Amino acid sequence: MKFLVINGPNINMLGKREPEIYGNTTLEEINERLKEFASMVANDIELDFFQSNIEGEIVSKIQATEAQGLIINPAGYTHTSVAIPDAIKAVNIPAVEVHLSNIQAREDYRKISYVSPVCIGTVTGFREDSYKMALLGLYNYLK
Amino acid sequence: MKFLVINGPNINMLGKREPEIYGNTTLEEINERLKEFASMVANDIELDFFQSNIEGEIVSKIQATEAQGLIINPAGYTHTSVAIPDAIKAVNIPAVEVHLSNIQAREDYRKISYVSPVCIGTVTGFREDSYKMALLGLYNYLK
Amino acid sequence: MKFLVINGPNINMLGKREPEIYGNTTLEEINERLKEFASMVANDIELDFFQSNIEGEIVSKIQATEAQGLIINPAGYTHTSVAIPDAIKAVNIPAVEVHLSNIQAREDYRKISYVSPVCIGTVTGFREDSYKMALLGLYNYLK
Amino acid sequence: MKFLVINGPNINMLGKREPEIYGNTTLEEINERLKEFASMVANDIELDFFQSNIEGEIVSKIQATEAQGLIINPAGYTHTSVAIPDAIKAVNIPAVEVHLSNIQAREDYRKISYVSPVCIGTVTGFREDSYKMALLGLYNYLK
Amino acid sequence: MKFLVINGPNINMLGKREPEIYGNTTLEEINERLKEFASMVANDIELDFFQSNIEGEIVSKIQATEAQGLIINPAGYTHTSVAIPDAIKAVNIPAVEVHLSNIQAREDYRKISYVSPVCIGTVTGFREDSYKMALLGLYNYLK
Amino acid sequence: MKFLVINGPNINMLGKREPEIYGNTTLEEINERLKEFASMVANDIELDFFQSNIEGEIVSKIQATEAQGLIINPAGYTHTSVAIPDAIKAVNIPAVEVHLSNIQAREDYRKISYVSPVCIGTVTGFREDSYKMALLGLYNYLK
Amino acid sequence: MKFLVINGPNINMLGKREPEIYGNTTLEEINERLKEFASMVANDIELDFFQSNIEGEIVSKIQATEAQGLIINPAGYTHTSVAIPDAIKAVNIPAVEVHLSNIQAREDYRKISYVSPVCIGTVTGFREDSYKMALLGLYNYLK
Amino acid sequence: MKFLVINGPNINMLGKREPEIYGNTTLEEINERLKEFASMVANDIELDFFQSNIEGEIVSKIQATEAQGLIINPAGYTHTSVAIPDAIKAVNIPAVEVHLSNIQAREDYRKISYVSPVCIGTVTGFREDSYKMALLGLYNYLK
Amino acid sequence: MKFLVINGPNINMLGKREPEIYGNTTLEEINERLKEFASMVANDIELDFFQSNIEGEIVSKIQATEAQGLIINPAGYTHTSVAIPDAIKAVNIPAVEVHLSNIQAREDYRKISYVSPVCIGTVTGFREDSYKMALLGLYNYLK
Amino acid sequence: MKFLVINGPNINMLGKREPEIYGNTTLEEINERLKEFASMVANDIELDFFQSNIEGEIVSKIQATEAQGLIINPAGYTHTSVAIPDAIKAVNIPAVEVHLSNIQAREDYRKISYVSPVCIGTVTGFREDSYKMALLGLYNYLK
Amino acid sequence: MKFLVINGPNINMLGKREPEIYGNTTLEEINERLKEFASMVANDIELDFFQSNIEGEIVSKIQATEAQGLIINPAGYTHTSVAIPDAIKAVNIPAVEVHLSNIQAREDYRKISYVSPVCIGTVTGFREDSYKMALLGLYNYLK
Amino acid sequence: MKFLVINGPNINMLGKREPEIYGNTTLEEINERLKEFASMVANDIELDFFQSNIEGEIVSKIQATEAQGLIINPAGYTHTSVAIPDAIKAVNIPAVEVHLSNIQAREDYRKISYVSPVCIGTVTGFREDSYKMALLGLYNYLK
Repeated sequence: MKFLVINGPNINMLGKREPEIYGNTTLEEINERLKEFASMVANDIELDFFQSNIEGEIVSKIQATEAQGLIINPAGYTHTSVAIPDAIKAVNIPAVEVHLSNIQAREDYRKISYVSPVCIGTVTGFREDSYKMALLGLYNYLK
Repeated sequence: MKFLVINGPNINMLGKREPEIYGNTTLEEINERLKEFASMVANDIELDFFQSNIEGEIVSKIQATEAQGLIINPAGYTHTSVAIPDAIKAVNIPAVEVHLSNIQAREDYRKISYVSPVCIGTVTGFREDSYKMALLGLYNYLK
Repeated sequence: MKFLVINGPNINMLGKREPEIYGNTTLEEINERLKEFASMVANDIELDFFQSNIEGEIVSKIQATEAQGLIINPAGYTHTSVAIPDAIKAVNIPAVEVHLSNIQAREDYRKISYVSPVCIGTVTGFREDSYKMALLGLYNYLK
Repeated sequence: MKFLVINGPNINMLGKREPEIYGNTTLEEINERLKEFASMVANDIELDFFQSNIEGEIVSKIQATEAQGLIINPAGYTHTSVAIPDAIKAVNIPAVEVHLSNIQAREDYRKISYVSPVCIGTVTGFREDSYKMALLGLYNYLK
Repeated sequence: MKFLVINGPNINMLGKREPEIYGNTTLEEINERLKEFASMVANDIELDFFQSNIEGEIVSKIQATEAQGLIINPAGYTHTSVAIPDAIKAVNIPAVEVHLSNIQAREDYRKISYVSPVCIGTVTGFREDSYKMALLGLYNYLK
Repeated sequence: MKFLVINGPNINMLGKREPEIYGNTTLEEINERLKEFASMVANDIELDFFQSNIEGEIVSKIQATEAQGLIINPAGYTHTSVAIPDAIKAVNIPAVEVHLSNIQAREDYRKISYVSPVCIGTVTGFREDSYKMALLGLYNYLK
Repeated sequence: MKFLVINGPNINMLGKREPEIYGNTTLEEINERLKEFASMVANDIELDFFQSNIEGEIVSKIQATEAQGLIINPAGYTHTSVAIPDAIKAVNIPAVEVHLSNIQAREDYRKISYVSPVCIGTVTGFREDSYKMALLGLYNYLK
Repeated sequence: MKFLVINGPNINMLGKREPEIYGNTTLEEINERLKEFASMVANDIELDFFQSNIEGEIVSKIQATEAQGLIINPAGYTHTSVAIPDAIKAVNIPAVEVHLSNIQAREDYRKISYVSPVCIGTVTGFREDSYKMALLGLYNYLK
Repeated sequence: MKFLVINGPNINMLGKREPEIYGNTTLEEINERLKEFASMVANDIELDFFQSNIEGEIVSKIQATEAQGLIINPAGYTHTSVAIPDAIKAVNIPAVEVHLSNIQAREDYRKISYVSPVCIGTVTGFREDSYKMALLGLYNYLK
Repeated sequence: MKFLVINGPNINMLGKREPEIYGNTTLEEINERLKEFASMVANDIELDFFQSNIEGEIVSKIQATEAQGLIINPAGYTHTSVAIPDAIKAVNIPAVEVHLSNIQAREDYRKISYVSPVCIGTVTGFREDSYKMALLGLYNYLK
Repeated sequence: MKFLVINGPNINMLGKREPEIYGNTTLEEINERLKEFASMVANDIELDFFQSNIEGEIVSKIQATEAQGLIINPAGYTHTSVAIPDAIKAVNIPAVEVHLSNIQAREDYRKISYVSPVCIGTVTGFREDSYKMALLGLYNYLK
Repeated sequence: MKFLVINGPNINMLGKREPEIYGNTTLEEINERLKEFASMVANDIELDFFQSNIEGEIVSKIQATEAQGLIINPAGYTHTSVAIPDAIKAVNIPAVEVHLSNIQAREDYRKISYVSPVCIGTVTGFREDSYKMALLGLYNYLK
């Protein structure tokens, strides 16, 4: 079973930016720990990682994937992209939306997500654990 | 470690209502499976279950709890209760908001949650697995 | 054939409150007259009456009913309750929303009803006759 | 006692259009059955029927009537006509607004009615029975 | 010099309807008095009167007129007609919008006028005198 | 194959009004050229033309038509009529909405169309060519 | 009979500012011509003129007046002052709101007037003639 | 003279919750001090205290009271209850709305109160003194 | 201890205006009674009274004061002034907002106060007693 | 004569995604058929095709083009891009906006287009024929 | 070359109020430093300084000025005054809007400026340097 | 001291597009003149120029910079990008937002900026001088 893990703009800055909101861990460390967690959940889960600051590259990556499931943190594009949810609908793969912080407790414009309605579910607020929880949920959903 | 699991109005009808949205499992079965899952996560997690159709009883239960963490599916009160999030802030215990369905893909009025901003995070859309994922996230948060 | 007639908060004050809006008849008198009217419509209609000021008790009553039809005047909960329409959907019984006054001609916030969309229809403005008209419509619907 | 029964645009198409929403009965049949029902309610009720697709003709009909009561299904003009409720206020005859379908469960723009505030009450959602219920309520109101 | 005086729906009911808002004078009396007033302003003013309850007839009348100026009380169509102001723009004749009552002091939906922006000015609130004041203003404008 | 071409209020003024927006061609010329264009597209297309300033007459015409396709420029009624789209749905004939000007580049209230959602598509901004393009699209759709 | 004519901020600049909107006449000339017009309407009308750029001075002037009628062009304070209409209500003198330009055809924020609802009527768009028309209407109202 | 003092949800937690907003005093202490203050204002004031987390119980308490005046801190129900103000109107007893904190300086949704319009006045922001001030005002109002 | 009592526009008209809303007492009488009340509360309270119809004069008065507390009834400027609350923040003196009437039960635009968020609290609806209650609250706050 | 045909994000997925909305034809097939159609319209029309998922690449392509006309399906960027219409204005080439589906009959956020106001017109809802119709209109416009 | 530098309400309090937002420098010091800066930019720039807390005095000052350019910090009147921008348009002198703080990062109501649209540009957020930057921009604009 | 000067989409078209709004100067000339101006302000200012039409490339550039200050004209992304302000917050470098035109005097959607709140200040409307003014402000801020 193969999952694509997509991170949107500025997530590559993790560990360097506003630690009181996002924590000190880098994206590489998060990915590494997610791999470990995946191996604990099941020994046949393969993870494909992708990060881009460019909306259209994320669209292209989704179109091209052969994964059975998608874990996506659209970051700043959560609130401004129609093209990304259109891509998710086009490939018709179950997707989970993930956020490190609790976006409902931040600025008003972060409360609106174009991506949520095309996902099976969302996990927000648990920092790097958000990804683990999403993986667990997605794995069970696909079983 | 003790967690309080609160379910709001109509969740006691699970397994009897609109199965295409909520599934066929009853609340008792969900609770039982959550217990099993908790024992796999750690052997010191104790779960206290509470369901009520009455907003004020949920408020009172939150006030009275001695749990270290709170998993709450406010159901219909998610969108209409200020008293419940006020209670969560008053007891100052980390809480996770859970929904069986992906509320962002349903009626517009289900997109607004008074409860989210007082929680550390949310899990939506994974049916009974939403509770398991929330428990995992809450446990790691408290460790 | 059995109908459940539910009245929400403050309807028990009828006959004592603002007569220029609601008339002088008490709830008990309304119920009595509705019974008489029902016996004229058909001789096999049984009526079960319930009034509560507590939103959650109305939810519980709806969940527990074995009636084939529901006549409900949600009163003040019309505009603030998601739990009550969720309960109506859960039990999947045809329901009619009733109001004594013409709520469209009162305060703006009384123009929005969460209950209407889960009902087969509504009757408003005919004071105690609203219930009779609702009963007639519900009876014909079920035949 | 004389009632004017007014039907707005497209109601003359009943029985030919979207049966899943409006049923298979024609307007002529509805009128006939309403007459029968009226004779059961009281033997002195006279019904005057009028249908028009033209807003201004409905206004003129209301102005010219000598009926003691008005039953009106404004159909598409419910949401776009100020002239029709102005006419109802001008003649100062008690009126009842009727809708075949439950307009609160359809498009958002059908939830706003300019006509409701000038009526004594409304009946929605009971298809042809909506007219019967309205007649019953109007008759009792006038007695 | 020729002026067209157009009155919209229900203005033909004047003298019969809500006297506390519109006064007791009939439309015919208003027209007669306006003629007298016009003859006092100048002896070459000819008045053409038109009233209709039908929006499209008002549109057609405006299209067909050969008057140099237009005095229009759109009544209920003030707030719901785009076709009438489109007609005024199409014939490119100076127009004055008139209202008997002070529409800014009534219901909210009466505060929006599609007609105002295509007129040179408006007169509201002076009952039958509104027409006289409009005629005076229009006459001076055209001189 | 028969198409009904409906034009709403003020379109009969074409060639006489605001040429910087609508051009100098009259409606009769547009109809004539559309006939020519139709004969080039296919030799079995018959066109039925109808123009009215009265909303309800347009409704009646749609109800009565035996055409297989509908081309409609609702003009001012685009933004204020629910009765016209209700008629289109009632007859269940494929319809195309046409506008001479680019309504998205004009006043805000011209950006909202009640008619669009019941049509298969729209063509705006190409003056008289809008009709030709609509005819081409409708013909291919029906083939 | 004594009328108070109040002009708000920047009206003292008339004749010097944006002539394409307001004309070339100065406020002094307008006042002089209004006096002449008043003497034609009746020989017992006395006019008291007041202009101020300061909202509170206009409030004080209204409080202090002994006039039987008020003609007011609130200019920029039309849309931002609650204190001025409060003063008009406090002295309980019939008032007419006047505007030189057609404010409904300008910026959106000029379409809202706090002053209109406390006046008997309004006259807009006739430049200096607006005052004359208002005087005529006010005089007739008081007779 | 008898006053009913009602406190809504979570007020029973006072002294235990967010002290930077609500202070350290418990509800029992507030009630005790209010009694002392009442005895200083007049020696015939009797106070009846009631606290509940359940909206409907507050409604029932208001319906059942025989007090001449009502002091109510609706807390979280301030912004979500129509049933409570309906009850106050039904019993027709003068009421004062009280808040410990300045609700206008907190979250946006706390700025809307359904209760205020049915009260004679409000006191907000003076912590436990808010009750004393309300009692003083209510006492003078009733004298 | 010195308090500044500021009254905004039209409050100087008290006793002369709309008595059904504001009562018959003049501002001078209110001030006199407030002095008496202050002497009962404590014998060291000095009151400085100021009334102006001019927003900027109120701003200047606040800037210049040496009082330890501020009682302000901004009247019409409550809803339209940013400069007054800016002044209160600039001098950093505890302030109480006072209103004679219950502004929540009047026009919609009176429900918004720019002043409330910079005050420690508000008292509304108790006519002249509102000032006394505010003084009591402010005195206790400063002790 | 040279036309640039631009397709935005996910249009490259045509024929693979949601066929009930977009049909089964691939973008390559659409382009091929459009070429054929162009050769039927005139033998001097040259077509340049461009598709990108990246908003900024579409901007750059528009800036660099030497075509005389632009046919653009902005897809997901229709509703979220200001940069694309800014580019169209910058190059000052007549453009036509095209959509495969009737976007007015889909989600609310698809009803707003930043691109429409800078185009001469729009064609929506005719699937691959939308492009043909746009080409016909653009060709006639340029002639 | 002569510039008028206008400061609105509370700017005279600079150096005394909320230093974390506005800094410690007084208005006199700012003016002095601005003079020095002006002499460095060009030796023919004359500065005229004006501060007032009264909206109408600022209007009058703008009307009376003979300066070629205007630098204005409308402070609290930025968001509530139509009269000030009307005055700027009336005198037709190029103006620059200045703010000490970044008003876009403060309360929502500070994001709306009536003054901006009548200025050539704005400078916000650079405390006293905002004036220098505005002067530089205005000087270059006028050259 | 090193500053990064970022220009968003279409700014590379300067000198070629709508000169009545943006002037005739090219971006290269602007950059050259800005360099000259910088050398006049201080001899240790180094400028790094970057322009891109792609939102994500601007994000990446901001992440990678080692400059001490940022001057950014986000152009079309001002109103649609959350990713760019997120990047500015992530690198925690003082930034100034610059616009050539006065965006407050253009379309409504240009009045909202996601970028402003994360900048120390803004300069708008001075064409190429906007950059010079921003540089001056930024330099003084950093000193």
